[in-house]
Amino acid sequence: MRFEVLHTCKQSGARVGKLYTDHGVIDTPVFMPVGTLASVKALSPEEVRETGAKLILSNTYHLYLRPGHELIERAGGLHKFMNWDGAVLTDSGGFQVFSLSSLRKITDEGMQFNSFLDGSKHFFSPEKVMEIQRALGADIVMAFDECTAPDISHDKARDAMERTIKWLDRCSKVELKPHQMMFPIIQGNMYADLRRESLARTVPYAKCGIAIGGLSVGEEPSVMYDMLDVLQPDLPKDMPHYLMGVGTADYIVESVARGIDMCDCVLPTRIARNGSAMTMNGFLTIRNAPFKEDFRPVEEGCDCYCCKNYSRAYIRHLIKTDEIFGGRLLSIHNLHFLARLTEKIREAIWQDRFLDFKKEFLENYSAK
Amino acid sequence: MRFEVLHTCKQSGARVGKLYTDHGVIDTPVFMPVGTLASVKALSPEEVRETGAKLILSNTYHLYLRPGHELIERAGGLHKFMNWDGAVLTDSGGFQVFSLSSLRKITDEGMQFNSFLDGSKHFFSPEKVMEIQRALGADIVMAFDECTAPDISHDKARDAMERTIKWLDRCSKVELKPHQMMFPIIQGNMYADLRRESLARTVPYAKCGIAIGGLSVGEEPSVMYDMLDVLQPDLPKDMPHYLMGVGTADYIVESVARGIDMCDCVLPTRIARNGSAMTMNGFLTIRNAPFKEDFRPVEEGCDCYCCKNYSRAYIRHLIKTDEIFGGRLLSIHNLHFLARLTEKIREAIWQDRFLDFKKEFLENYSAK
Repeated sequence: MRFEVLHTCKQSGARVGKLYTDHGVIDTPVFMPVGTLASVKALSPEEVRETGAKLILSNTYHLYLRPGHELIERAGGLHKFMNWDGAVLTDSGGFQVFSLSSLRKITDEGMQFNSFLDGSKHFFSPEKVMEIQRALGADIVMAFDECTAPDISHDKARDAMERTIKWLDRCSKVELKPHQMMFPIIQGNMYADLRRESLARTVPYAKCGIAIGGLSVGEEPSVMYDMLDVLQPDLPKDMPHYLMGVGTADYIVESVARGIDMCDCVLPTRIARNGSAMTMNGFLTIRNAPFKEDFRPVEEGCDCYCCKNYSRAYIRHLIKTDEIFGGRLLSIHNLHFLARLTEKIREAIWQDRFLDFKKEFLENYSAK
Repeated sequence: MRFEVLHTCKQSGARVGKLYTDHGVIDTPVFMPVGTLASVKALSPEEVRETGAKLILSNTYHLYLRPGHELIERAGGLHKFMNWDGAVLTDSGGFQVFSLSSLRKITDEGMQFNSFLDGSKHFFSPEKVMEIQRALGADIVMAFDECTAPDISHDKARDAMERTIKWLDRCSKVELKPHQMMFPIIQGNMYADLRRESLARTVPYAKCGIAIGGLSVGEEPSVMYDMLDVLQPDLPKDMPHYLMGVGTADYIVESVARGIDMCDCVLPTRIARNGSAMTMNGFLTIRNAPFKEDFRPVEEGCDCYCCKNYSRAYIRHLIKTDEIFGGRLLSIHNLHFLARLTEKIREAIWQDRFLDFKKEFLENYSAK
């Protein structure tokens, strides 16, 4: 695996690049659709590919619980199991323990937690998490980290950061499969000094990419942007910078301006199933009454399968009647929208006018 | 619209034919997938088409309630609304009032019933049902009929049959769109004399096809076959014979032997979403434990998208974790299976060996 920066925008730190993996070449900045349980919800791999996606994220925590990483390894790995010949990134499970498991105990050894499914007890150590991700066989695997809530004290944030670095050191000693590469994760909560320190101590472990964790977890957007501003000058320039868990159009545009190359989020597909579409002007709640007899496509000018063939009225009908195909159509549109957005972003970077693009985009965009 | 019998099997009354509609030519015997709410659940029109289906059924009762037939007419009709360029048949709603509405009152005027959604009161007259189906714009529309339970008295069954014929006469006076054709429905419960009488009095109204209703509603299979045996000699030979609500492989094979040309059922897609596959040997409950590490396709030798690309283990994982894609894959397989089955049936009829085919098929098939 290797990464190449092709161009850095003269107006900002935004970059276009190429990430070479054994399962394809990915243009950055890139948005990664999420396939939590080895399926991008409701979609076929062909549909995901057709939206423009070449790299998807899958969840270690979920796949460890069901169907189990050993089963997936016996099936020939995640790519084969789910019939996806593109690239895959697996997270480390740290965030899911943080967000899904109410009963958890974190020590320097690792995390003890209760399954969100049946309450059964499990233990994730850095070594265990690497072993699971090795079995899954993703192209990019993530180091085990401790994610923290945005309201904790400096002392607690430091503890979590220190632990994340100790775990990172242990993760780095685990051998992966030849095609796999590990990205370490910067933590440090919302404290600039901790973020800076975490970055400095994480960089030595970064061989091919580096991630920023613990943001977009409930803090104000401005706080997230501040943290990205703190990190940007010292992020290794020759590697992709992956901002974890970000997936709205405005967040993506703002993050790219701060040197971010990769991001992911369940939001585009989750809101699709709830009847919301993403557009260049903001969200469109198709399930609402005004769209009842609106025979226009979801987004005028969009050339996705959904917009080319179906009306807002039809999709609203499907969503209101719980027809699966409605969420499927909006999922296609939303992923296509983000692929199209990142394409526009790359174009603007090449033309050294990314800040102009960002300004124009945000003027037309409502985050509500 | 017209129908052509191409060949009648020398071993039985089974026929192969072609049904010409404004939305394509359909080879019979044919199985029609059901798209209750203007969507074959979980599937795109392209996927439905790819399984081999050229004619689908949609439900008048459901579409009248949501989103409303007038909205669909304003959208340009059902075909355009749902992006399906193949042929469509709509039922008359009589069966749904029978099966879904607990509070109903049936008089010679029509049926008063409460919506299964919100309990609101509605009234279907023969004229109203034709008006709804005209607005929906299906190629084949069904006359309004009274379906009855298999355990009622001869007197009650006669009343319902008489009423169905009165309604049929009223339906026949309603003008449809130029591309539409109405099929009348034979009733008569499980009484041979009533079935015979219903058939004789229905035939004069049949211009292009005739349907058999009120079977496969809970009676023993042998009773259904007896009723078909009663009807077979007198069904108009130059028209397709549509047996409503039948969709398992053994029922289809037995019915075709009795001169049936068309059938429909929600079962193939419904059981798919619950994790069951249809095969030439019977049902396969993929959600069960034995398939946990079974890396074979759902049905060996099947060339559908599901069987070509996914394992039983993967599909079981999707079904167990409520991933929509699992039900979608099994829906594709089940519809493809039935299209393949009817293809084999047509082949056997052409070769004048349909009874041999039926015998071989049933020897390998378990209906459990």
